[in-house]
Amino acid sequence: VRTIDWVDGAIEIVDQTVLPEQLTVRRIETLDHLVSAIQELAVRGAPALGVAGAMGVAQLALSGAGIDEVRTGAARLRAARPTAVNLAWGVDRALQRLEDGPGSVLAEALAVRDEDVAACISMGLHGADYLRAVVPDRDISLMTVCNTGGLAAVERGTALGVAQTIHEQGWLQEVVPLETRPLLQGARLTAWELQQMGAPFRLVVDSAGPFLLSRGAADAVVIGADRIAANGDTANKVGSFSLALAAKHAGVPFVVIAPESTVDMSTASGADIEIEDRGAGEITSFGARATAPRGTETYNPAFDVTPHELITAIITDRRVVHLDRGQELSTVPLQPSRQS
Amino acid sequence: VRTIDWVDGAIEIVDQTVLPEQLTVRRIETLDHLVSAIQELAVRGAPALGVAGAMGVAQLALSGAGIDEVRTGAARLRAARPTAVNLAWGVDRALQRLEDGPGSVLAEALAVRDEDVAACISMGLHGADYLRAVVPDRDISLMTVCNTGGLAAVERGTALGVAQTIHEQGWLQEVVPLETRPLLQGARLTAWELQQMGAPFRLVVDSAGPFLLSRGAADAVVIGADRIAANGDTANKVGSFSLALAAKHAGVPFVVIAPESTVDMSTASGADIEIEDRGAGEITSFGARATAPRGTETYNPAFDVTPHELITAIITDRRVVHLDRGQELSTVPLQPSRQS
Repeated sequence: VRTIDWVDGAIEIVDQTVLPEQLTVRRIETLDHLVSAIQELAVRGAPALGVAGAMGVAQLALSGAGIDEVRTGAARLRAARPTAVNLAWGVDRALQRLEDGPGSVLAEALAVRDEDVAACISMGLHGADYLRAVVPDRDISLMTVCNTGGLAAVERGTALGVAQTIHEQGWLQEVVPLETRPLLQGARLTAWELQQMGAPFRLVVDSAGPFLLSRGAADAVVIGADRIAANGDTANKVGSFSLALAAKHAGVPFVVIAPESTVDMSTASGADIEIEDRGAGEITSFGARATAPRGTETYNPAFDVTPHELITAIITDRRVVHLDRGQELSTVPLQPSRQS
Repeated sequence: VRTIDWVDGAIEIVDQTVLPEQLTVRRIETLDHLVSAIQELAVRGAPALGVAGAMGVAQLALSGAGIDEVRTGAARLRAARPTAVNLAWGVDRALQRLEDGPGSVLAEALAVRDEDVAACISMGLHGADYLRAVVPDRDISLMTVCNTGGLAAVERGTALGVAQTIHEQGWLQEVVPLETRPLLQGARLTAWELQQMGAPFRLVVDSAGPFLLSRGAADAVVIGADRIAANGDTANKVGSFSLALAAKHAGVPFVVIAPESTVDMSTASGADIEIEDRGAGEITSFGARATAPRGTETYNPAFDVTPHELITAIITDRRVVHLDRGQELSTVPLQPSRQS
């Protein structure tokens, strides 16, 4: 089952709000449904949001809406999650074909989907080669946060896709996923994916990650990204920054793995990235049960920003940028995507 | 209501497993009840565990048990939580009076209780003076983890007791408590105590703490301690280490506040501190609801160890040890406890 796909004239997604208890496909027929699905994180992950953005525009164009109406809807879709650049990127790619008619818009959305499948294979290979150089002589342990596997993309993921590639190559010792509060994408989604692929793992609470790094629990930290600024500063799930500090302290590589479409050269640095605040409800209750006293105020940043000086390398489908060796996104050339 | 007290011939505790929904006093009549209450964290916090240890021995002695039986029971009580040194310290203080008869043992346990009340007042004053020097000219914001308030002691707390003292003095801008997974002592207990005292606060998930420090969200981090080794390395709730790294990165003080009884000069360094692993259940489910797939393995360290070089100062009821100025626990002399 693909995480997001175009099936019989509509978008279908694996509903990530009910995993791991249920594996349910949700069919999305309208823009309202899609915006809701994005905001409640039924579909999430930078690559999947890129596909959702493009398919959302295609669906609107195919519905018979006029060009102005499609543009208005596209703006709404674009704004559904402000930090993730891929959503806007996917919307814009589809919009560029609007003058050519709905069929062309759909073709572009399907291309975005197919390119993601290929990009994730390429990232897995680049990432595995990079980490083989870090740990040349034994099996590797990787720490990660949030979910960056197939559930964050179409078929295979970004950072977790690298772990999957290494597992397929036979030299993955263990993954240490952080549970990822408040919505537990690590506990619910990453643990589920690791079980599906038969990879060994031990789940930990978020704040244990930095300490366990200091005790040698992982050879490297691998994370995805929601937006990578021109200077390499990276917005990703909250918790990434603290892992980066701890990786530096422990002397292990901290590696960002994301498709080229996550690199946003129009954002100069992390200071220019808007951080989505998702409100109190996610923190003060769990399901129907209160976890904090009534009236508790919160600050709930969905993302944090890791400064480029704490990042060892940025690995995309088309290049490896060694920030720790002084390389920069603006100068390292793109290579063709790898498929082996 | 005191968190732990001796009432009509038995121990009474505020049951911390049901807060903030219910404020319930649990009466403890046997050693079995006390060991269970400690292990399920119905009573918790280093100072409160010291009192629980002493009162547990007194209760056993008063029950008519012979001296050997009391010693056997005391050994069980001592081992109920391995990381917290105060539990063993309280047990040992009461045991020292065993030859003088049950009445003397009880008198010692009541002295442990009364000394804690006084020690927390003294820590509050020392801590407030220390932080006034850090932020001399405006109201202060403090970040903290777990619960170190009155619920962790008898009447007032350690790190949160400092925030309370500053609030009473009128210059507390805000507390930023971390929710403290897996058992949410920050969300359930610290938020509740802050509400009770009318202090402004915003609750955050654990992994947001380090990032928010980097964005200037607090002027200092204040934490308690479960054991302080001779070189200043400090075992405290998991998450402390990552806050210490982030405080260093942000250039704000990271201050440990605990009674002298938490200082364990017989433990040379953090490498000698046993870290309690509390098992998978706390991470893989919340109440009756699964949060991770069946069969998920975990690593669940209840504590972490912050190395002394990341700690700015250790403040006890009887001294301020400026680690950042090269002072050491072994050389800074004890002063009388302060009451004003």
